[in-house]
Amino acid sequence: MRRVLASNDALAAAQRRKLDEHGVLGINIMSGPGAGKTSLVERTAEALGGRYRIQVIEGDIQGDLDARRVAAKGVGCVQINTQGACHLDGLMLGPALAEIDLGNLDLLIIENVGNLVCPAEFVLPVHYNVTVISTPEGSDKPAKYPLMFSKSDAIVINKMDLLPFVDFNVAVLKKAVRKLKPGITFVEMSTKTGAGVDQWVTWLEQKLRARRRSR
Amino acid sequence: MRRVLASNDALAAAQRRKLDEHGVLGINIMSGPGAGKTSLVERTAEALGGRYRIQVIEGDIQGDLDARRVAAKGVGCVQINTQGACHLDGLMLGPALAEIDLGNLDLLIIENVGNLVCPAEFVLPVHYNVTVISTPEGSDKPAKYPLMFSKSDAIVINKMDLLPFVDFNVAVLKKAVRKLKPGITFVEMSTKTGAGVDQWVTWLEQKLRARRRSR
Repeated sequence: MRRVLASNDALAAAQRRKLDEHGVLGINIMSGPGAGKTSLVERTAEALGGRYRIQVIEGDIQGDLDARRVAAKGVGCVQINTQGACHLDGLMLGPALAEIDLGNLDLLIIENVGNLVCPAEFVLPVHYNVTVISTPEGSDKPAKYPLMFSKSDAIVINKMDLLPFVDFNVAVLKKAVRKLKPGITFVEMSTKTGAGVDQWVTWLEQKLRARRRSR
Repeated sequence: MRRVLASNDALAAAQRRKLDEHGVLGINIMSGPGAGKTSLVERTAEALGGRYRIQVIEGDIQGDLDARRVAAKGVGCVQINTQGACHLDGLMLGPALAEIDLGNLDLLIIENVGNLVCPAEFVLPVHYNVTVISTPEGSDKPAKYPLMFSKSDAIVINKMDLLPFVDFNVAVLKKAVRKLKPGITFVEMSTKTGAGVDQWVTWLEQKLRARRRSR
């Protein structure tokens, strides 16, 4: 297992260098099932699709439900079916990346398989890992899935519209996540109502501009 | 991988025979993170703890939050920490099962790691697999995690109290699950309000009585 992970680390690093050569920003979005990854991608495409060239890679065990949702927002989308595997990795991404014209791209969004465990172990060719946690899941999740939170650069707390109806304590969640990853960014959001999307877009645009300047 | 799974199948079958020798009913509860597995175990302990001898095995990557919640309900509970692994399997259950006095037991409940992917591949020493899906996760989950649903004997649709506030279609979910597993049992529930718990308890008691008669 250690050898598999080390070989994936090396492959992902090589793939990320290709993104760097073209000044493309890579984002890996992770969460448990149904937390709102695809809705976040849709909101991002709506907000930034007019100003940036965006490409999405959709990771799913089976089917193309999410890829069709994303493509309907007018951005490029490649579907990867993992055929049972619980995460994406560099080997699976290879053929998808080969299809994408990196010279004609600003932002690559990879939506991982819905799983708070395995995806955290496999480095992807991105610059930032984003984890979506939704309020109905409960604020005890960082204690139970620590690796995922410790590997994240930003946490989207989604389904804030459901906060009055569920047992979720935002302060408790933030405190637990900061113990695992000091200085991490939080964005409170409802992909359903659109609240907080502007804050997410601001964070992403800062990263996009920094990448352009670094070329 | 096929050899690992086959070896686990054989181990789980041997472990289940030990349950059978003592007339113990085994239940494996699976779901994504935060769907309500532990709350379901708590409700079960409250409803049946006075009439049946219940033992719970809690599977978590790390920590003992859930085990402490369950033990507070007055039933026996053994915690297994998988140390990063995304599922329970027969090897991990061995030491926990050795601690349990099967001759003094009616019902063994195993709460799996919160994950809709990997636990479906590893057979456990139980008679029924139960998957909890919560309404905020969305009714498209059977299409995306088909193995989990096809391996289940009953589906608990939890967080029915949130139905007015989320995009979840009960009929769509049931239809999709029945395609994967015809004749499967559904229980609509809110572990929070207690609605539907009686239906779950009825299902479980039928299985408990049948097991006693079969001895």
